[in-house]
Amino acid sequence: MRAITIAFALLCCGAPLAVVEAASPTVIDLTHTFDTNTIYWPTEPGFDLKKLDDGYTERGYYYAANRYDAPEHGGTHIDAPHHFSKPGQTVEQIPLDRLVGEAVCVDVTTPCSVDPDYLVTIDDLKQWEKTNNASLAEKIVLLNTGYAEHWPDRQKYLGTAEMGPAAVAKLHFPGLDPAAASWLCSARRIKAVGIDTASIDNGPSRMFQSHVNLFEHQVPALENVASMKDLPATGFRVFALPMKIAGGSGAPCRVVAVLEE
Amino acid sequence: MRAITIAFALLCCGAPLAVVEAASPTVIDLTHTFDTNTIYWPTEPGFDLKKLDDGYTERGYYYAANRYDAPEHGGTHIDAPHHFSKPGQTVEQIPLDRLVGEAVCVDVTTPCSVDPDYLVTIDDLKQWEKTNNASLAEKIVLLNTGYAEHWPDRQKYLGTAEMGPAAVAKLHFPGLDPAAASWLCSARRIKAVGIDTASIDNGPSRMFQSHVNLFEHQVPALENVASMKDLPATGFRVFALPMKIAGGSGAPCRVVAVLEE
Repeated sequence: MRAITIAFALLCCGAPLAVVEAASPTVIDLTHTFDTNTIYWPTEPGFDLKKLDDGYTERGYYYAANRYDAPEHGGTHIDAPHHFSKPGQTVEQIPLDRLVGEAVCVDVTTPCSVDPDYLVTIDDLKQWEKTNNASLAEKIVLLNTGYAEHWPDRQKYLGTAEMGPAAVAKLHFPGLDPAAASWLCSARRIKAVGIDTASIDNGPSRMFQSHVNLFEHQVPALENVASMKDLPATGFRVFALPMKIAGGSGAPCRVVAVLEE
Repeated sequence: MRAITIAFALLCCGAPLAVVEAASPTVIDLTHTFDTNTIYWPTEPGFDLKKLDDGYTERGYYYAANRYDAPEHGGTHIDAPHHFSKPGQTVEQIPLDRLVGEAVCVDVTTPCSVDPDYLVTIDDLKQWEKTNNASLAEKIVLLNTGYAEHWPDRQKYLGTAEMGPAAVAKLHFPGLDPAAASWLCSARRIKAVGIDTASIDNGPSRMFQSHVNLFEHQVPALENVASMKDLPATGFRVFALPMKIAGGSGAPCRVVAVLEE
């Protein structure tokens, strides 16, 4: 930021116009690609890209264009509060202030490596604050379970590679404890939460209580976030920018981290 | 940024943990919503959101979910270089460095208000640099034609509300002159360009030469950018984050501007 400020100051002072090297922040992509391997719920057909044009036209120029078709909830995406809350905000109603901001990364890879149904607890979160001498208040809170490293292996990532309604009972992956979801909203007033698994509730959940608890506070959830292995615990911003679907209960979301300069 | 730096310094020095008020940057959304009114090319069917679930389940919780279906090129979206260049990058291959960076807004509303087919020229761009005592080099360059104010009125925005192949000959809206497209790439090495019309080439274009010229330099284009009326000429960053479609020639894109703090 300093380099940029100096550049602007020089320009504003009427110094001779020159190509000024602007400071480029380090930006880390936390997004999986959408393709035929993109993971959706076992009951959902996946992402479909239909090729419409691909080749040289009779006028001589090259032209490629496609059409896409997918459920809202799959790949790296946002759950809008309306997904599990009738009065909750839909995607286009989520304020940008919730999607852009100071962020933290809570490493829970160790417990998640031994318990595939691990639930991140209030104690984990309080311990993180103590260890890092930092507060979760008003942050975008990313939970690093390590499961992004399994993507796109459905067996390892979801606990089952089977498809269809019967596969839902075989889902195993970590999530956020419903009590911790409530605590993050009421005691820490977080902006948003993100996780590198298929759902903010863990695999065996049937009542999706963490979704319900977050969304009654209008706190959106990012799911299937990509690998957080290059993130520090603190000192970065997240920009989680979803496709602006009017009335959407969720949407594909490009999630990036910008490291402090 | 200063307030945040001070906050981190305090925390790192082991000061007592406190809720630190982080500076919230001003973020301006430059994105139209995707809905039934979203403007696509006259030959394209538009955005379709299919409701899958919407109501209370037998277990007692509320649940809503949808499926979306659309062409890549419509609404606020990115054209990847591959759209008009066989060796050009597809959406997931565009480096984040091109999508995140210092940006400028070039006001061409006056000539566009009198000529619906106006082409932004090299002279316009050089004049902007002189007036603003700033360089376009290595910037994300946004062209404000004023046409975003017509959205979603197809007659005013596209020059015709008709649909189908015959309507293409009736398109009228401003664009970027192909010579200026080349100049921005070779003389100013811009990161990306954006415009608040349906295409970076103007309505009557049949050879799409600005697309071709930009994309041979791997410079992507943002189209149907929303109103820029609240943007300054300089002093902001753009985050243009597209849905990460593997092999995509384009994708819906959330475009935001972050004003300097």
